[in-house]
Amino acid sequence: MGWAIALHGGAGDISVSLPAELRLPREAALRHCLQIGVAALKAGRPALDVVELVVRELENIPCFNAGRGSVLTSNGTIEMEACIMDGKTMKCGAVSGLKTVVNAISLARLVMEKTPHIYLAFDGAEAFAREQGVETVDSNHFITPENIERLKQAKEANRVQIDYTQPIKKVVEKEKPVANGDSHIGTVGCVAVDNQGNLATATSTGGLVNKMVGRIGDTPIIGAGTYANSLCAVSATGKGEAIIRGTVARDVAALMEFKGLSLKDAASCVIEERAPSGNVGLVAVSASGEVAMPYNTTGMFRACATEDGYSEIAIWQCRIE
Amino acid sequence: MGWAIALHGGAGDISVSLPAELRLPREAALRHCLQIGVAALKAGRPALDVVELVVRELENIPCFNAGRGSVLTSNGTIEMEACIMDGKTMKCGAVSGLKTVVNAISLARLVMEKTPHIYLAFDGAEAFAREQGVETVDSNHFITPENIERLKQAKEANRVQIDYTQPIKKVVEKEKPVANGDSHIGTVGCVAVDNQGNLATATSTGGLVNKMVGRIGDTPIIGAGTYANSLCAVSATGKGEAIIRGTVARDVAALMEFKGLSLKDAASCVIEERAPSGNVGLVAVSASGEVAMPYNTTGMFRACATEDGYSEIAIWQCRIE
Repeated sequence: MGWAIALHGGAGDISVSLPAELRLPREAALRHCLQIGVAALKAGRPALDVVELVVRELENIPCFNAGRGSVLTSNGTIEMEACIMDGKTMKCGAVSGLKTVVNAISLARLVMEKTPHIYLAFDGAEAFAREQGVETVDSNHFITPENIERLKQAKEANRVQIDYTQPIKKVVEKEKPVANGDSHIGTVGCVAVDNQGNLATATSTGGLVNKMVGRIGDTPIIGAGTYANSLCAVSATGKGEAIIRGTVARDVAALMEFKGLSLKDAASCVIEERAPSGNVGLVAVSASGEVAMPYNTTGMFRACATEDGYSEIAIWQCRIE
Repeated sequence: MGWAIALHGGAGDISVSLPAELRLPREAALRHCLQIGVAALKAGRPALDVVELVVRELENIPCFNAGRGSVLTSNGTIEMEACIMDGKTMKCGAVSGLKTVVNAISLARLVMEKTPHIYLAFDGAEAFAREQGVETVDSNHFITPENIERLKQAKEANRVQIDYTQPIKKVVEKEKPVANGDSHIGTVGCVAVDNQGNLATATSTGGLVNKMVGRIGDTPIIGAGTYANSLCAVSATGKGEAIIRGTVARDVAALMEFKGLSLKDAASCVIEERAPSGNVGLVAVSASGEVAMPYNTTGMFRACATEDGYSEIAIWQCRIE
């Protein structure tokens, strides 16, 4: 028992030869965000506040695909989405199609707390953001030169790009199969249990490079990318289509609830046996402070810590620290 | 074994003293749509085609809250959503925020079949409809005088209306608790298994009276309002918030898959033990041709038939025929 936290910056085909100039800022970001979450948990803040706080920070860091750094639609526009869920009350909030909101995850929380609804999208979500007075900026704030280049290359290749860590090299591009176009690689998320045993989860994303305007992925779908109840909290990342079809986040909890599996066994079952290989990763914590961070992709940007002093930052199989 | 079909036109607080002029057209509509589905199954059409066909018909009938007859947002506008899923392939398609598309369910199927995505919403979904050349009309086509009156009364009462069968009577209104605002009562849906054992589900809705612009409910959420796999197909109706939190449609399937329950036991468990009373109903069929149509509301507009000759049309506990 005790608090625990896990966070991710996306799972996918992350090359083990990822250049240091791309790897190091992401490692530093994971470390920084983990420290923020751990400090909040040590200060006794509730899990729901902690996951929002950490995901806001991940949104503000441009090297992940959420908030600033979000990838672009086929029209070159930004459409961000996010979801938050409180395991104790099962209350949840979600948003999609945001173009100007600095922190999508905080708007999702306001939908949860200030409306009779769970989920607002596109113009209605933007109008709600203005009504609530949350920070908004011109869409250009979110757009990075790297993402303009990624969209250009995806358009040249006439595909929806699945790998966000590097611009596609054309020679590599020709060897790769055409993406099925529904990936969320680079999505960010955080799950936590506080020392009262309350669980919460939060996930945020820019979607995928060259996605159709109006496309909704797994992130805002309760039970797909995001889910928490009194047993566990889960945030998934990877190919959105596989995560939606697999009701990935709910299935981790359902295997615990209906089959009596431990968190680790339930999470492994979903990732290793049920989800299509090469497509999905997740972070999860249980009410008793267990952590699981399985993935069936090449790597997953991730970090975790528990009250008993364990902590880990990793991209591939071996811990970085 | 053999084909089976079940359909609904919404669950909710349907008064047993519903006037004949409101009751009879709905009974006739259920009978008509059931006949269409049964004829298609007898003709050997696949389950996926059958559920689309039946839901198109339900959308075209103005006495249900989907397609023509959709209720209005707080701005007096139409925002329809729909979802379809093929149990055999687990392929699925969903749409939200449609203002001009005559048959939302068919656009959901096109998203499934013609895009790399699962879910398109609002302007992007409308643009896709035009690109695909599906039938569109001015939004006024969908708006009925009854729904203009319902919105007016909901606004006067400053609430999101949950009962769609009759305009709210003010004297009754004062006795009722304020709605939590996330109901889908009047949603339509159909599930079927063909005589090849293939399962499919389809759900379509106008949402709820006086909903915020941009609100997304349970209908388009895979695992909430709509879900099918190789074991069963489920379409839920009722209070969207409860259905999303309860991952209702997926939980029916998960109880069969992870606990070995029969369709009837799984559906009963979800509706009678897990979902909040007074909020949720569903129709479901299994691969072996079982049918379940439980609800914990006052009533549910529903109908079913199986290959062995059983058929049923009902609103409250007793069969009408």
